[in-house]
Amino acid sequence: MSHNTFGKILCVTTFGESHGPAIGCVIDGCPPGIAITAEDFRHDLDRRATGKSRHTSQRHEEDAVEILSGVFEGKTTGTALALLIRNTDARSKDYGNIAETFRPAHADYTYWHKYGIRDHRGGGRSSARETTMRVAAGVIAKKWLHEHFGISVRGYLAQIGPHTPAAFDWSVVEDNAFFWPDAAMVATLESYMDALRKSGDSIGARVNVVANNVPPGWGEPIYGKLDAELAAALMSINAVKGVEIGAGFESVAQHGSQHRDEMTPQGFLSNHAGGILGGISSGQDVCVSIALKPTSSLRLPGRGVNLAGEATEVITTGRHDPCVGIRATPIAEAMVALVLMDQALRHRAQCGDVGVMSPLISASVAGAKPE
Amino acid sequence: MSHNTFGKILCVTTFGESHGPAIGCVIDGCPPGIAITAEDFRHDLDRRATGKSRHTSQRHEEDAVEILSGVFEGKTTGTALALLIRNTDARSKDYGNIAETFRPAHADYTYWHKYGIRDHRGGGRSSARETTMRVAAGVIAKKWLHEHFGISVRGYLAQIGPHTPAAFDWSVVEDNAFFWPDAAMVATLESYMDALRKSGDSIGARVNVVANNVPPGWGEPIYGKLDAELAAALMSINAVKGVEIGAGFESVAQHGSQHRDEMTPQGFLSNHAGGILGGISSGQDVCVSIALKPTSSLRLPGRGVNLAGEATEVITTGRHDPCVGIRATPIAEAMVALVLMDQALRHRAQCGDVGVMSPLISASVAGAKPE
Amino acid sequence: MSHNTFGKILCVTTFGESHGPAIGCVIDGCPPGIAITAEDFRHDLDRRATGKSRHTSQRHEEDAVEILSGVFEGKTTGTALALLIRNTDARSKDYGNIAETFRPAHADYTYWHKYGIRDHRGGGRSSARETTMRVAAGVIAKKWLHEHFGISVRGYLAQIGPHTPAAFDWSVVEDNAFFWPDAAMVATLESYMDALRKSGDSIGARVNVVANNVPPGWGEPIYGKLDAELAAALMSINAVKGVEIGAGFESVAQHGSQHRDEMTPQGFLSNHAGGILGGISSGQDVCVSIALKPTSSLRLPGRGVNLAGEATEVITTGRHDPCVGIRATPIAEAMVALVLMDQALRHRAQCGDVGVMSPLISASVAGAKPE
Amino acid sequence: MSHNTFGKILCVTTFGESHGPAIGCVIDGCPPGIAITAEDFRHDLDRRATGKSRHTSQRHEEDAVEILSGVFEGKTTGTALALLIRNTDARSKDYGNIAETFRPAHADYTYWHKYGIRDHRGGGRSSARETTMRVAAGVIAKKWLHEHFGISVRGYLAQIGPHTPAAFDWSVVEDNAFFWPDAAMVATLESYMDALRKSGDSIGARVNVVANNVPPGWGEPIYGKLDAELAAALMSINAVKGVEIGAGFESVAQHGSQHRDEMTPQGFLSNHAGGILGGISSGQDVCVSIALKPTSSLRLPGRGVNLAGEATEVITTGRHDPCVGIRATPIAEAMVALVLMDQALRHRAQCGDVGVMSPLISASVAGAKPE
Repeated sequence: MSHNTFGKILCVTTFGESHGPAIGCVIDGCPPGIAITAEDFRHDLDRRATGKSRHTSQRHEEDAVEILSGVFEGKTTGTALALLIRNTDARSKDYGNIAETFRPAHADYTYWHKYGIRDHRGGGRSSARETTMRVAAGVIAKKWLHEHFGISVRGYLAQIGPHTPAAFDWSVVEDNAFFWPDAAMVATLESYMDALRKSGDSIGARVNVVANNVPPGWGEPIYGKLDAELAAALMSINAVKGVEIGAGFESVAQHGSQHRDEMTPQGFLSNHAGGILGGISSGQDVCVSIALKPTSSLRLPGRGVNLAGEATEVITTGRHDPCVGIRATPIAEAMVALVLMDQALRHRAQCGDVGVMSPLISASVAGAKPE
Repeated sequence: MSHNTFGKILCVTTFGESHGPAIGCVIDGCPPGIAITAEDFRHDLDRRATGKSRHTSQRHEEDAVEILSGVFEGKTTGTALALLIRNTDARSKDYGNIAETFRPAHADYTYWHKYGIRDHRGGGRSSARETTMRVAAGVIAKKWLHEHFGISVRGYLAQIGPHTPAAFDWSVVEDNAFFWPDAAMVATLESYMDALRKSGDSIGARVNVVANNVPPGWGEPIYGKLDAELAAALMSINAVKGVEIGAGFESVAQHGSQHRDEMTPQGFLSNHAGGILGGISSGQDVCVSIALKPTSSLRLPGRGVNLAGEATEVITTGRHDPCVGIRATPIAEAMVALVLMDQALRHRAQCGDVGVMSPLISASVAGAKPE
Repeated sequence: MSHNTFGKILCVTTFGESHGPAIGCVIDGCPPGIAITAEDFRHDLDRRATGKSRHTSQRHEEDAVEILSGVFEGKTTGTALALLIRNTDARSKDYGNIAETFRPAHADYTYWHKYGIRDHRGGGRSSARETTMRVAAGVIAKKWLHEHFGISVRGYLAQIGPHTPAAFDWSVVEDNAFFWPDAAMVATLESYMDALRKSGDSIGARVNVVANNVPPGWGEPIYGKLDAELAAALMSINAVKGVEIGAGFESVAQHGSQHRDEMTPQGFLSNHAGGILGGISSGQDVCVSIALKPTSSLRLPGRGVNLAGEATEVITTGRHDPCVGIRATPIAEAMVALVLMDQALRHRAQCGDVGVMSPLISASVAGAKPE
Repeated sequence: MSHNTFGKILCVTTFGESHGPAIGCVIDGCPPGIAITAEDFRHDLDRRATGKSRHTSQRHEEDAVEILSGVFEGKTTGTALALLIRNTDARSKDYGNIAETFRPAHADYTYWHKYGIRDHRGGGRSSARETTMRVAAGVIAKKWLHEHFGISVRGYLAQIGPHTPAAFDWSVVEDNAFFWPDAAMVATLESYMDALRKSGDSIGARVNVVANNVPPGWGEPIYGKLDAELAAALMSINAVKGVEIGAGFESVAQHGSQHRDEMTPQGFLSNHAGGILGGISSGQDVCVSIALKPTSSLRLPGRGVNLAGEATEVITTGRHDPCVGIRATPIAEAMVALVLMDQALRHRAQCGDVGVMSPLISASVAGAKPE
């Protein structure tokens, strides 16, 4: 029940601080025989990495993964799989000037109250640097889900400040720095972000993730619900303030006759449920959406207090993303993949072979359209 | 890691189906010495119960709690505390006509794919009847939190369909059948609900819960975050499709300079964070908000399929709430209270006496106003 | 992680005190489709029950099991399976005279220090009455293991005081009140026990349990070892003071050339390992042995202290077994069965279908002889 | 619930194989503020290390611990504490000749059946190399237990083959290569071991561990019993085949009048219980004893089978201890310390400050004599 561990059968334990010597993780319960090399982590770590465009933080991390255990002759052995990444670009001195000051809306205030310890170096354990290992672990989950069930777990940016996509095309999402599904808007977003960066301010974002081909029957009743675990997994990502499944908060103003996804022999007629009924997958696309707050590390001065409780002015000069939500896309995908794989293994534990019961009806009449 | 169990130190395991002989729960890890009697459960169970007004389902459950163990001479002993409620108003025959039919947006479809078992009686284990035991367990958590920290965990209905409160007054919330904070609107809501019931349709709702006086320092980093566990706890409630902490999805369009809750020696200047920073309580009010979908059990016919995969028309004639969100208020309170107490005990485990470090600054300049 | 819960996938949570209104359990994670009725619990509960012969306690419990949930039309549904037994023969007054006195070698002293609560009624939660529910849960595990793998989990009394069996025959174990494998010695044991009862004293015992047909591959490395979990499961039974796997403490004086179980294409040549290597089953019989202390509830006066810390003389006049070890036989079987089933499900979670890899060599050249 | 993780509040997750690049661990839930440096691990790692005398394996590991996270300015921060040790003396080639052969009484046979993967390098994950990290984690637990409660957790070798100590003196245990409490016998043991090594055979051993000053009240009823968790912790150590608490298997032939530890205002009159009643510490010394089998890695040829199921002759030429039990002493201490600290934190979670209730009577009239 350790709080640095995620999952029940597939358990990921992470460690490391943003400005310590290294970060890493231990992946436990991984099925044997999955082909994996250090290179396999590259793609998603790059997608998450800072420094890929001028729109994200200018820190440069190599993020070279070393596999310490659990893989033998290129395949998982079923035993503890450990990954290590050395921190190579941690400039603690950037943070020296705020050693005595609590920054508004930062975790340093609450960690200090909890532990009585103040690690002022860039957030210490609370830094989003930790999410690197979530992405790494997610690589294995994505691979396994795809190989066994043809599942793809894909995310995109669905809103940034006032901007929402006017069109939707999966094929362009990976072609721009914003994971944006509308190619025509990319130039607009670039201008928007440039202006934002100049202003010294930051902005929130919404990320959507869709998993297709999830068989019906994954998820556990009551407290092990698929949606409950997705909610926890996604809310545990730095800066997330809200989680929706399917229609989410739109449900509040919907009538039952509108919200209920009617069923026909040809498939479901809609997917307001987001692919989950009673906490268990229905065979439709699993659709989640998250809200990410704007970072509070700004060049604009803000009111804070110091360790003596006195008023101070805080200006953050470290390298920070003006929109942390962009980079959250592969992190959210990773968390969704980890939840799905863990639930798949748990389903297999209780009920035997996963996906043994074919869906009674096909996923959707209208095709896998993200909510 | 059983899926019928909630919590890590304070563990609540529930059992029972809506149309079986009884429902119950086992509360494990409860501190010794808490005064508790069967009567203490009455108030919140009544708040949750059906049949209290014409606006909720007309099922009548007595919900008389029997304490089977864990209490001796009126006090908790520290050992397994078991509660039992006999089902007294389960008319299975109401469901006979849908024994062969999957209802749209119901869990019967997914349970059947998961388990290969069809318990057609009113949802079986997936029924909201289970939440009765959440409320019962929550009574103990609320009591403990209030006695030890002066914490109150209070909820109210923040939206029902198109209606939102025009005013806010905690003191009227318990005086109407809707947990509505604006007394002047109650007549309007009654008309709205009467029309809805007549139409045979249902509507969604939003419930807010606020916990005040939570000391700074509760919650665990990374995967044991207070907000992550609140998200799971709330999303696990029947019909919930979205969870927000603090500003929630409003954060998406906020600038950092607006969202960050600045700090002064006199207190925080706002509470967009919802009382949680880095997954740990800040000393401000903990504010959560949930979206509840409209029930799919309607008198309006809908398209479904039967066990043979053939098209059917489904009409639900059982007794069902036109707005399940109303009754969710005490359930959401209970889940928030259980999460808080569990985290309080876990904090005590790792860090010693809870609340030993006084808040550096007071909770809020503006007072405990729900987000 | 509740302490009233046992198992990881198959989770058994028990509740109830010896002198409260009822005892019960919730079985979580049980596969769906297992045929089970209230009658199925009868046989093993009778084997465990007091009052079956004059050699065990003269309390009379009906132990009538009520299935509260988790079974529909005679089959497990996959959801929480709850069992309840009302206590019908709890005479608290028998214990009134020791309300203020700590009995030597009893849990009342340590419970009082832990919880600050004194429930003097026959041990309260620490009573062996709790093991009734272990046996009940074990019935389901035994049934599942036998139906899926042909596994039998059988126990016998291997020593009582100075007496050990001179011969071994499984077929007579169930034919005498001692679970004794040597029919010729039963009369001797009866005389021995009669004399013991007359003397007011008690005696320890050793129980062996053997599970045959366990496929190779069950158990998890490091901290989830099959033998480690058997050790915990067995040591958690009231009065157990020692656990052995295979050769157990005889290993201390063995040479490696003697202890190692050599392998031939025809099978293993011995089973000092007790069927477990590196924490994982080998395909040989799984053999465990436990030591049970003599009960401390004696008619012979002993020195104790009262709540004021003053010296007292304690005589126990309640109904107690002169050898609690006898009744432990079905309890130990149940715990072994529960561990095996839980590990089988966990193996299926990580590695897919259980028993898919046939044993490379047959279990044993010599046949399944208990160690 | 990962099987590479140990503990409930204080959670230790280990990783690494004997012949991989490194081993390590993550310690979660550790209280903040414990002073710790890499040097603190030296003493116990040396006690466990191979190569310290000619009586243990001639592998040479530096075992230099690197602290990767969780310590800031010399103190634990309360967040994930990670330790890493690079493997510097792993000669895989020593094992090349047995790549195709299952060694008798080795885990390679069972791992292969479980995972379908064969890592032939010295046992891979099943190697006792993993216990290095247990000892490292135990260092922190020992330190915390001693600083907060004055608890010492000390072990000694209580038997090796036919030899048992004729005298007992704690002060000499650390002065000889055998952790032997009888200085006069050390020369005898050296001769015995030399002869054993020459013969190519190995021998079993018994290790006792005693923890003094444990406050009454630690441990949890039913399935979280202190003795049950000690049993699992100790049985999970490589080569352990039996665990005893207090009188252990001697209880089988004891009468109740003899076994029960009578209480007087001056203290307990004996300690057959091993300091645990009803699964909860009594305030007496906690006394455990374990049996370790002789290693099966012998120069004496034994019968095995190869991957094709054919008969082979196996001779182990790698470097192995003739008595693995000797080195188990600090490992067993570490496991006892980890269990105690975890239980202490759990007790604090449920019941508040540990040790708040003073023992009613003193630990023992006779003083802390190991059972």
